[in-house]
Amino acid sequence: MELTRSVFKHLQKICGKANVTKHKEERLCYSYDATGNSFLPDAIVFPGSEKEVSQILSLASKEELIIVPRGAGSGMTGGSVPVKGGLVMVFSRMNKIIEIDENNLFVKVQPGVIVSDIHKCVEEKGLFYPPDPASSSVCTIGGNIGECAGGPRAVKYGVTRDYVLGLSAVLPSGEFIQTGVTTAKGVAGYDLTRLIVGSEGTLAIVTEITLKLLPKPETIKTMAIFFDSTQKAAQTVSTIMREAVIPRCVEYLDEACLHLVKDYLSFDLPDSIKALLIIELDGNSGRVEKDAKNIKELCVSQGALDVVIAKDQTQAQTLWDARKALSPVLYKIATNKINEDIVVPIDKIPDIVQVTQNIQKTYGLKVVSFGHAGDGNIHCNIMYNKTDENESKRAIKAVDELFTATLALGGTITGEHGVGLTKMKYLPKEVGRTEIKIMKGIKKVFDPKNILNPGKIFN
Amino acid sequence: MELTRSVFKHLQKICGKANVTKHKEERLCYSYDATGNSFLPDAIVFPGSEKEVSQILSLASKEELIIVPRGAGSGMTGGSVPVKGGLVMVFSRMNKIIEIDENNLFVKVQPGVIVSDIHKCVEEKGLFYPPDPASSSVCTIGGNIGECAGGPRAVKYGVTRDYVLGLSAVLPSGEFIQTGVTTAKGVAGYDLTRLIVGSEGTLAIVTEITLKLLPKPETIKTMAIFFDSTQKAAQTVSTIMREAVIPRCVEYLDEACLHLVKDYLSFDLPDSIKALLIIELDGNSGRVEKDAKNIKELCVSQGALDVVIAKDQTQAQTLWDARKALSPVLYKIATNKINEDIVVPIDKIPDIVQVTQNIQKTYGLKVVSFGHAGDGNIHCNIMYNKTDENESKRAIKAVDELFTATLALGGTITGEHGVGLTKMKYLPKEVGRTEIKIMKGIKKVFDPKNILNPGKIFN
Repeated sequence: MELTRSVFKHLQKICGKANVTKHKEERLCYSYDATGNSFLPDAIVFPGSEKEVSQILSLASKEELIIVPRGAGSGMTGGSVPVKGGLVMVFSRMNKIIEIDENNLFVKVQPGVIVSDIHKCVEEKGLFYPPDPASSSVCTIGGNIGECAGGPRAVKYGVTRDYVLGLSAVLPSGEFIQTGVTTAKGVAGYDLTRLIVGSEGTLAIVTEITLKLLPKPETIKTMAIFFDSTQKAAQTVSTIMREAVIPRCVEYLDEACLHLVKDYLSFDLPDSIKALLIIELDGNSGRVEKDAKNIKELCVSQGALDVVIAKDQTQAQTLWDARKALSPVLYKIATNKINEDIVVPIDKIPDIVQVTQNIQKTYGLKVVSFGHAGDGNIHCNIMYNKTDENESKRAIKAVDELFTATLALGGTITGEHGVGLTKMKYLPKEVGRTEIKIMKGIKKVFDPKNILNPGKIFN
Repeated sequence: MELTRSVFKHLQKICGKANVTKHKEERLCYSYDATGNSFLPDAIVFPGSEKEVSQILSLASKEELIIVPRGAGSGMTGGSVPVKGGLVMVFSRMNKIIEIDENNLFVKVQPGVIVSDIHKCVEEKGLFYPPDPASSSVCTIGGNIGECAGGPRAVKYGVTRDYVLGLSAVLPSGEFIQTGVTTAKGVAGYDLTRLIVGSEGTLAIVTEITLKLLPKPETIKTMAIFFDSTQKAAQTVSTIMREAVIPRCVEYLDEACLHLVKDYLSFDLPDSIKALLIIELDGNSGRVEKDAKNIKELCVSQGALDVVIAKDQTQAQTLWDARKALSPVLYKIATNKINEDIVVPIDKIPDIVQVTQNIQKTYGLKVVSFGHAGDGNIHCNIMYNKTDENESKRAIKAVDELFTATLALGGTITGEHGVGLTKMKYLPKEVGRTEIKIMKGIKKVFDPKNILNPGKIFN
């Protein structure tokens, strides 16, 4: 339904005049996300409390107004873009770290808290919140809940879902719900917590999150391994993961990546380099030293060109620079990229690497691959120029082929970015009709009027 | 609906005559579980394949016949008892370990596999499936999925839910579904996998399970710590959990337990003992030795009477005997027990210990407590004689008070046993009306005719 003047006034009454806007500039600012897709919302609302969220949703439900929850807009699949207009709900005012419980190892936060702020706060107390998506310095925990964010440390520590003990949320009707526990275990009734995590803001609006914490690891050890063949690198990842120690990160960069970042590095790359692994171990210091040595030996036996073990945090940072410099320099190749976060079984990494090389040839487009190889999660970036109609068409075909190959290898089309808008048409490739029918049924239970983030995941 | 002769014949046609029975003796055998609750089913069916499960469900759906899935019947809350009659579906024929993928660290199993058989098979290949409920030598993985089983290792490794990558299942309509992935990550659509895990056989019948595996830890170190005060023991647990190393088990036994098992032990207990902790560490051998020493020092500083570190596996087994001997000897106190698997935040363990002591006094019933203290999951056994009407009434009141206190301490009424039948009336103490309404809505999406395990979790 349309946002009438009286509804707008009602919203102002709920949140205060300063916290609702329909200025064109602001609507533009909240129209897009990291995909570059852009749809103008009718207005933007900044609730300050759970109560305000509930009042807004009650009103929206009555008026059948669309509500699109939004964190920092750093999502990679259009999860937060208002594809059907409506109100964008932004959580920048609900950004408090409510409680860190050091005895029981949990933290309670509001959805608008920046993920790296959680990291800092809990680490100061000797605790650790493992999920660390690449965007952690800007993205919000609410967005992470929506998409079930992952990141490099997932290889050892799992993803957002594995750390959410419980949620406070508001249903589209405006009713409050509480899910989960603040304890280590809990099985009372259906697992609504993990149903809401990863539901991309389509089931309920999360207003408070209880996250499980771990004791902070004593030491971190970073190492870089150079290979003259992508296949050797991929094979090494698979071999490392069979060892009794799971690294906290196993990142992979292909030749195209290395070519792009080499000028930004403070160390030289061997001429024959075709792939780089960055491996990070954590734990007790004696143990970590030993593991690093073992992994070095293993890499050498797998034919690595060279292995560099960082001596200190500064040198570790230097090694990470290769990975961090990537995202911005990608645009040197082409003005646009399609970044797909496919996952394959670890021992199928060599096969998917081959697939991307074939796609590159077939479609005449540069495909740059890097990512969390330790859990088989490769970010394939298909580079193209949007203004070139023919290139755009080829890029779409390339994505289609990439997904088909990924699924044929026993993988998934999305490891951590979600389906959102951009993968919606591909979901039926992976998820069957009966399963989607069940998902739609669940959506209807939570949101019978389809006012929460419609036009996402499935149509 | 009634099980007519023609429907029975149809079932025989689907599964073979040998695999359906309505003999009184067999119906009795499948009428109860570990709670002692007993309800006669109309018949028992033993499907041999996913296809047979689907055909049975199609038929049941058409005839509106109740289906109650059953593992080994070792459940603690009546999850598998046919409270409203119908067909009990037993998975003893679907007991294959289908595939162990050593490269990608997962195992595919059928629901009827005994959990300890999974342990054995994967450990032979140097891999590890952590969840290990006390009943693992008899219980099935299907039952573990139904209840989201936990066990002592959950303190370090998490519960069943954390290891289920994907499921094949059949809906009450007979339709097949596939959920989840065989990869480390995956977020395509709503998380149906974790919705089905812990749904106590009320949403779908699971026919194949993909479980995540870990590399097998190099060494295990077991230690026993004696305390002259339950409060000191409880405080020590809370302190240990704040250290940077999380033990794989932290088991707690109270004075009543120790009194019961002391004659069965091959070591002497100090006279002044009031509580025992059994702690188990795993990992690299050097590391584990060091951690054991650290924990010993910590325990001594917390006022432990004595600390015994097992020198080898045989001595470790001796320490575990105290815990293993418990269940059978409990019946020396009284003929019946109500075993409640409450969970409280770790630092509230001293409070809940106090609560059980008060309950004991108030109701004149022996309360024996032991359990997975490392995650705050205490099994409180309220002992009574069922034939004594007055004792039975007091036992019910005691449970009520225990749950109220648990929830007031920020805990949950069930950590790993599920709600089933016996906790159904208590669920609304923990889970709100709106949340239950949503759960019932979800139930209806999966099972519109309410034929799957009705009369469980919520009415």
